[in-house]
Amino acid sequence: MDIATIIGLILGFGLILVSIMMGSGGLMPFVDIPSGMIVFGGATAATFINFPLKSVFGTFGVVLKCFLFKLPAPAETIAQFKAFAEVVRKDGLLALEEKAADVSDDFMRRGLESLVGGSSATEVSDMLETELGYIQSRHQGGKKMIDSMGAAAPAFGMIGTLIGLVQMLGALDDPSKIGGGMATALLTTLYGAIVANVCCIPLAGKLEARSAEETMVRELIIRGVALLGEGATPRAIEEQLVTFLAPKSRATESKQAA
Amino acid sequence: MDIATIIGLILGFGLILVSIMMGSGGLMPFVDIPSGMIVFGGATAATFINFPLKSVFGTFGVVLKCFLFKLPAPAETIAQFKAFAEVVRKDGLLALEEKAADVSDDFMRRGLESLVGGSSATEVSDMLETELGYIQSRHQGGKKMIDSMGAAAPAFGMIGTLIGLVQMLGALDDPSKIGGGMATALLTTLYGAIVANVCCIPLAGKLEARSAEETMVRELIIRGVALLGEGATPRAIEEQLVTFLAPKSRATESKQAA
Amino acid sequence: MDIATIIGLILGFGLILVSIMMGSGGLMPFVDIPSGMIVFGGATAATFINFPLKSVFGTFGVVLKCFLFKLPAPAETIAQFKAFAEVVRKDGLLALEEKAADVSDDFMRRGLESLVGGSSATEVSDMLETELGYIQSRHQGGKKMIDSMGAAAPAFGMIGTLIGLVQMLGALDDPSKIGGGMATALLTTLYGAIVANVCCIPLAGKLEARSAEETMVRELIIRGVALLGEGATPRAIEEQLVTFLAPKSRATESKQAA
Amino acid sequence: MDIATIIGLILGFGLILVSIMMGSGGLMPFVDIPSGMIVFGGATAATFINFPLKSVFGTFGVVLKCFLFKLPAPAETIAQFKAFAEVVRKDGLLALEEKAADVSDDFMRRGLESLVGGSSATEVSDMLETELGYIQSRHQGGKKMIDSMGAAAPAFGMIGTLIGLVQMLGALDDPSKIGGGMATALLTTLYGAIVANVCCIPLAGKLEARSAEETMVRELIIRGVALLGEGATPRAIEEQLVTFLAPKSRATESKQAA
Amino acid sequence: MDIATIIGLILGFGLILVSIMMGSGGLMPFVDIPSGMIVFGGATAATFINFPLKSVFGTFGVVLKCFLFKLPAPAETIAQFKAFAEVVRKDGLLALEEKAADVSDDFMRRGLESLVGGSSATEVSDMLETELGYIQSRHQGGKKMIDSMGAAAPAFGMIGTLIGLVQMLGALDDPSKIGGGMATALLTTLYGAIVANVCCIPLAGKLEARSAEETMVRELIIRGVALLGEGATPRAIEEQLVTFLAPKSRATESKQAA
Repeated sequence: MDIATIIGLILGFGLILVSIMMGSGGLMPFVDIPSGMIVFGGATAATFINFPLKSVFGTFGVVLKCFLFKLPAPAETIAQFKAFAEVVRKDGLLALEEKAADVSDDFMRRGLESLVGGSSATEVSDMLETELGYIQSRHQGGKKMIDSMGAAAPAFGMIGTLIGLVQMLGALDDPSKIGGGMATALLTTLYGAIVANVCCIPLAGKLEARSAEETMVRELIIRGVALLGEGATPRAIEEQLVTFLAPKSRATESKQAA
Repeated sequence: MDIATIIGLILGFGLILVSIMMGSGGLMPFVDIPSGMIVFGGATAATFINFPLKSVFGTFGVVLKCFLFKLPAPAETIAQFKAFAEVVRKDGLLALEEKAADVSDDFMRRGLESLVGGSSATEVSDMLETELGYIQSRHQGGKKMIDSMGAAAPAFGMIGTLIGLVQMLGALDDPSKIGGGMATALLTTLYGAIVANVCCIPLAGKLEARSAEETMVRELIIRGVALLGEGATPRAIEEQLVTFLAPKSRATESKQAA
Repeated sequence: MDIATIIGLILGFGLILVSIMMGSGGLMPFVDIPSGMIVFGGATAATFINFPLKSVFGTFGVVLKCFLFKLPAPAETIAQFKAFAEVVRKDGLLALEEKAADVSDDFMRRGLESLVGGSSATEVSDMLETELGYIQSRHQGGKKMIDSMGAAAPAFGMIGTLIGLVQMLGALDDPSKIGGGMATALLTTLYGAIVANVCCIPLAGKLEARSAEETMVRELIIRGVALLGEGATPRAIEEQLVTFLAPKSRATESKQAA
Repeated sequence: MDIATIIGLILGFGLILVSIMMGSGGLMPFVDIPSGMIVFGGATAATFINFPLKSVFGTFGVVLKCFLFKLPAPAETIAQFKAFAEVVRKDGLLALEEKAADVSDDFMRRGLESLVGGSSATEVSDMLETELGYIQSRHQGGKKMIDSMGAAAPAFGMIGTLIGLVQMLGALDDPSKIGGGMATALLTTLYGAIVANVCCIPLAGKLEARSAEETMVRELIIRGVALLGEGATPRAIEEQLVTFLAPKSRATESKQAA
Repeated sequence: MDIATIIGLILGFGLILVSIMMGSGGLMPFVDIPSGMIVFGGATAATFINFPLKSVFGTFGVVLKCFLFKLPAPAETIAQFKAFAEVVRKDGLLALEEKAADVSDDFMRRGLESLVGGSSATEVSDMLETELGYIQSRHQGGKKMIDSMGAAAPAFGMIGTLIGLVQMLGALDDPSKIGGGMATALLTTLYGAIVANVCCIPLAGKLEARSAEETMVRELIIRGVALLGEGATPRAIEEQLVTFLAPKSRATESKQAA
């Protein structure tokens, strides 16, 4: 999980906790198991109704993987492709076999192995493009599910508050209970707002950013494998792959790769 | 109906019931026939005004069918096509007649029968594509209707609450009635929120997912029938149809079909 | 006006009336002329500001016509074209003159008369396509106007409620007036919600459905007239026109036309 | 400004005034300078932050011009082009010089003068098309600005109400002030709702309709000037230009132009 | 930062301050550190969760630069290109070297230096187009981040208000605290509304306008450099570049450049 997500989550929940602790009454009035059940359980229920069963479990894995997975750094990947191109130039494509086995990134290794195994550059790019398409559609599915939970949580928060209000109003003859009943009724709305605005909405945004980043690296790898297969020179490979980077990163890349 | 929808609906309504029962007063204050009438009846009325009569009844059927209908499993369908291709190879297209009659899926059987009956591969795919187009437009019509009910239910919930508030405020001289009146007034808003967020919005999402799944299977069948008609080999049919599956399912498929 | 619209409107308003009558106080607290004035008048005013004068009046006519106008039934129209094609086959195009005069649908009659008058099939379809374009843009204009009224009515409802609240709060020293003042203030919001959710939003949806239906019939007629002009055989005309119908209707059509 | 806009504004504000005067307390409780300042001033401030300085002033002019500017009537313009074509036929293109000077519409006169000055039909249409593009983008800019004011006014209304509520709640120990404070606090929300729903939203709609109308007339003029430059006959010009009108207007046009 | 933004911000905040000072109680009830913390801190936290770390810091710089950066005036730039074209005409492309070094705009200078350094007109435009693409995508990223802060601030305002309400309602047995507690609870909603409607939403709009303006100037420069590289005459350069300006500005430009 990238560092900004962790900072943001700690900051967000920390601020809410601090602002609660600074008020009178402490944390206790804000903890209510049934309120939590209706918001978290309700959003989960809506997700089950909304998405096919295997999507629900599959997508949680995809989302987690998207956040935890360490992408290969573009600059290092370019340097790697340059080194491979030199190997190919000296000893032919088959000499890559050994090198390919050491590549830690699964996607890139599979591409190199296909190439060594005799597939043409076009065949390998087609295969990797198809796989990238499935990766992207899984990310989009994950974003859609987080978005839908971000909409369901406040809705169940409102349902919980309405239930609490009806119960509180039914007991209006005992005025001392009004405040407490209303406070509890509002908790589900608060929970729903926190789930949506601290977790779901920003996490869906981050998932999109991570997906765009992964797509860029994957496309760089696809292009690199194809260039290797076409027998491009190390210099040509570097020049072509560098166009995937923003101008600023290019300077850094040159220094690192130097 | 798929298992996730049932789990989700039981979980969603169960949580709401449990959270009501845990509060004071039990279930009774939450049951009010006129409130139910205005929300459910109102959403139904809006649907009648919004859609042509035959769409309303037709679409309910389409929606039910979409949820209850058991789609042929893609992997089994591919194996079936492979077997048919072997029959065609040995004994010619006409030998399919008997096999086709045993196919349980209506859409696939009709395609095979047309093929046996002498239509060309192109004619049969055109016919099936047209039919798929009508299936998709019925699903879209169904989704639109559920979406519109998901918008109408909270709107009628608000109308009911406003009616209740006006009645309660008119009797404000009797303060003991305020609480009860307001509680009843809020019930329609609660009903509307439940209808929209537990049923309509997530069900519309599931309908879309089911429709996408059915479209994929139908397109696989159309491609399979066309390949049979073009006299493709069993191996060629398997290779082409397997591209409809996601990479993970392909491995499973190979095992199952083995 | 189609039957579903009438059922829906009666059901919608009936439910609201019944739910009012079942409460205490009867219908009277819900009738307030100034509240009605500000919601209905305000939505009308916004429509006048929003649309050109001739659009406002023209569109009301278009909308009414769209609802009241009886479309020719597709199956009957196909049978009619088949009969015309037989006349043309036997006695030539000019023999249609007499038949054309009996056609009750204005759009179809004009097309046939042009054909008899010597225009080519292409000229007649171009003319009818242009006219269909104007019909569609009038329907879209009507939908836009109803949609904008459906947005203006709740807005003026809120304006009315705010005015009522300010007046009520200014007289807060007399506590007995609070309830009544607030009840009246809420009436405009209630009126606005009813106008939008019982009338405008669903009617805009129905107008769209009716427009799609009319477009389908008009395109069937344009195709039929063009086929007549090209001298197609009755069988060819029937086969081509039948593709405008959904598979289910086709069966019905065959029976009816048989 | 077209008559419907004036009728609508008078009707809208009139209804609000009447509905205020019919209540108790008269107009005075609804007039509050600071409330007006925060809504109108705030919406203006947001506009200044949102748009470049010269756009703000430029756009007000464009909007005013769009409303006040009298468009040449299409039917008259067609008749004019027909007359010009006859002049050109008899005495050549240069004979238009004198006629062109009398044309009151700036856009049309400039086109004719270019034509007389020796530019080709294509050059003149290109020039006029470019100018029409700028006119349209100015109208779109104006619509965007009115739309943004229509969103800012209710937002500043809410800000004002929150400020009023905080002040009122701070003085809660004096219960007699509650009503008045709350009434004043609500005034900004009321002002914001009126500015948005009586002025901004419908005026943005009218601006769009006026812009569409002007575009149609301008395109008719561009086509007319181009046809003149190509030496088309009066009859050909009329036939071509008439296609810009809706079927109904065509009949009227024929009568008027006759 | 352009003058309209400053005027707007001063006007917006000034109006809010004045409207606060005119009420009873002065500024103090509106200042609450924890309320500020939860709104500003929460919106920042959501931004960290939503965007990658380097984007967050990078984008702030981009946004600031976009507001503070002084764009070269189009008319002056055109005059400059005209002067350069005369230099090129007299003394050849290499004579530009010295002139290019004096150009204050980085983007334009780099283009001229590439040209002098021997790149073809097409190569230089390609390089500058790519750079412009990155500038635009940075601006879009900045707008997206400001938009997301404009949505997060009111959400955290609501979370803060809910926390305050729960605390206040828990202490309902002490009626004298109700007013103050509720006033404080509302402060976060007020802060959130101000952050969103005075800062984020209009600033995102201005960023878009500035970005469009910068794009226009950059494209003018790219075209100018390309024309220089193609050896166009000063007159041809002026004629072509002037088409980037709106008709009104063209007149002004002619005067200024004269």
